[in-house]
Amino acid sequence: MPVNQAIILASRPKGAASLENFTLVENPVPEPQTGQVLVRHLFLSLDPYMRGRMNEGRSYAAAQALGEVMIGGTVGEVIASKNPRFKIADKVVGMGGWQTHALSDGRDLHRLDGSVPLSACLGPVGMPGVTAWYGLKKIIAPKPGETLVVTAASGAVGSVVGQLAKIAGARVVGVAGGTAKCAYVVQELGFDACVDHRATDFQAEFNRATAGGINGLFENVGGEVLSMSLRRLNPFARIAICGLVASGYDGTPTPVKDISNMLTMRARMQGFIVTEHLAIWPQALAELSALVASGKLKYRESIVEGLAAAPQAFLGLLKGENFGKMLVKVG
Amino acid sequence: MPVNQAIILASRPKGAASLENFTLVENPVPEPQTGQVLVRHLFLSLDPYMRGRMNEGRSYAAAQALGEVMIGGTVGEVIASKNPRFKIADKVVGMGGWQTHALSDGRDLHRLDGSVPLSACLGPVGMPGVTAWYGLKKIIAPKPGETLVVTAASGAVGSVVGQLAKIAGARVVGVAGGTAKCAYVVQELGFDACVDHRATDFQAEFNRATAGGINGLFENVGGEVLSMSLRRLNPFARIAICGLVASGYDGTPTPVKDISNMLTMRARMQGFIVTEHLAIWPQALAELSALVASGKLKYRESIVEGLAAAPQAFLGLLKGENFGKMLVKVG
Repeated sequence: MPVNQAIILASRPKGAASLENFTLVENPVPEPQTGQVLVRHLFLSLDPYMRGRMNEGRSYAAAQALGEVMIGGTVGEVIASKNPRFKIADKVVGMGGWQTHALSDGRDLHRLDGSVPLSACLGPVGMPGVTAWYGLKKIIAPKPGETLVVTAASGAVGSVVGQLAKIAGARVVGVAGGTAKCAYVVQELGFDACVDHRATDFQAEFNRATAGGINGLFENVGGEVLSMSLRRLNPFARIAICGLVASGYDGTPTPVKDISNMLTMRARMQGFIVTEHLAIWPQALAELSALVASGKLKYRESIVEGLAAAPQAFLGLLKGENFGKMLVKVG
Repeated sequence: MPVNQAIILASRPKGAASLENFTLVENPVPEPQTGQVLVRHLFLSLDPYMRGRMNEGRSYAAAQALGEVMIGGTVGEVIASKNPRFKIADKVVGMGGWQTHALSDGRDLHRLDGSVPLSACLGPVGMPGVTAWYGLKKIIAPKPGETLVVTAASGAVGSVVGQLAKIAGARVVGVAGGTAKCAYVVQELGFDACVDHRATDFQAEFNRATAGGINGLFENVGGEVLSMSLRRLNPFARIAICGLVASGYDGTPTPVKDISNMLTMRARMQGFIVTEHLAIWPQALAELSALVASGKLKYRESIVEGLAAAPQAFLGLLKGENFGKMLVKVG
């Protein structure tokens, strides 16, 4: 009997997440009932938002239930179908979770047309890409010549934000951890500058790279860089809040200083969750897919092998140890 | 020869502002030249924004120059005119500054029609009122039944915000300092509740008054209440940042905790300066004037006598020692 491997949330983190919060379990692969599709997963996406789901309490989505399979985006192949919309060997993207197989009624599955690599549908042509597209176009809306700061610049979201902003004519300053990531962000992705937040002269370099002030901030991290950016805002700056792992949801939050610049610079700060803006997905995915297919939008992946490697890879993602989109090769 | 009394900025504050930052000087009242109007001031408005102008550095307006007359809104009477648009005894509102007389070319002066008391044109039917109107209508835009928090609720801006929000059908929770102000806010202004930020059980009372969460925050103060409010945001909450005296521009700023709620609640925070939205002033003033004239919009004033009293009154305003709109009766 084929076995489904799954990783469940065994306990909620107190402070930073740890391996103890996860348990790998095995159970039989289920049979699809009428209307259902059985998908064998090829790739699992690991994303910072999952950390928020591990906490209890008020958030934009229900907390991940204890003892249940961890939530997560997946790309897979249909291996059995009692749903007329899907046939065996179809490639699909969905929310199959941290497991090797998933049953679905098909409503959360989208068939992939093969125009871009499968794994890209969890990255630049998937949720991270649409997140970048929405925050940049709908919240920051950069004008040519404006200066944007993008944190986690080499990551799945940040890398797309910066490249789309360059296409829009903005000057783009990335923030990333380490010289290798910064070099990649400038040389491969085409950002105008990238500042290493691990360098001892980070603050001075950041101020130098943003000498003309900041018109837009795409915030994927939070923490000290958010305060530093607030001090450098230009009038009518826009801040898209996409991730704040360093400002609260994994352990001790970093308080935000210099919030008074929100007033003095008449700035706007907006948090958003891309799954609440489904109307823009088709347009965003079409644009992103065309850019990836033509090679104009570059991306990089960190892939670990096997579902059992997911917890460690996820913890590394929260610490910035990945380089590009973090994926688990499941099958 | 008639004497003009004026208060100049003698030095910039280091930390909190103090009396030493101001000096009273006397000079001859000037003669109007062709095109000019001479105004004798009746009331000078004292407003928290003036504290920001006393600092050097990046802000929404040039810093107040050292040795120059402090900036400020004034109501006065034309006592000499070589400008065909104004005649002697006209009552005007303008930006005459902290002095007993001012020359003007007339461009910053607006003639008052007497439909409301003169001093109200520095309060609910002046800049503070329009500030309230803009932040409430254009940033928060409350829906009936939503819960709004208004800080400095008994003040010139906050009192108008809350009353307009009640007219719009919102539930309004004020925050003010002391039992007398809180009683006034509920009993006279008609807020649903008002929490005393000086009480020992402030946090518990605040949480009780906002048990259903907060859909809108009109922030006049900043500091700890801003962090407390962030923790109680409902999804899609709107925060109008109007004043942040406790978060930075008078002394040591209070860092903002719980900024992560901006993301989890997909909230929007916007700083604004009402003088950058001149297009809405006629509509706002017309509405506010009608509400005051009909008695539907109530207001209260703290009036000190004589220009020499302005510095002490201003420092008191920054500490919340006033009760309602802070004015100096100049003439």
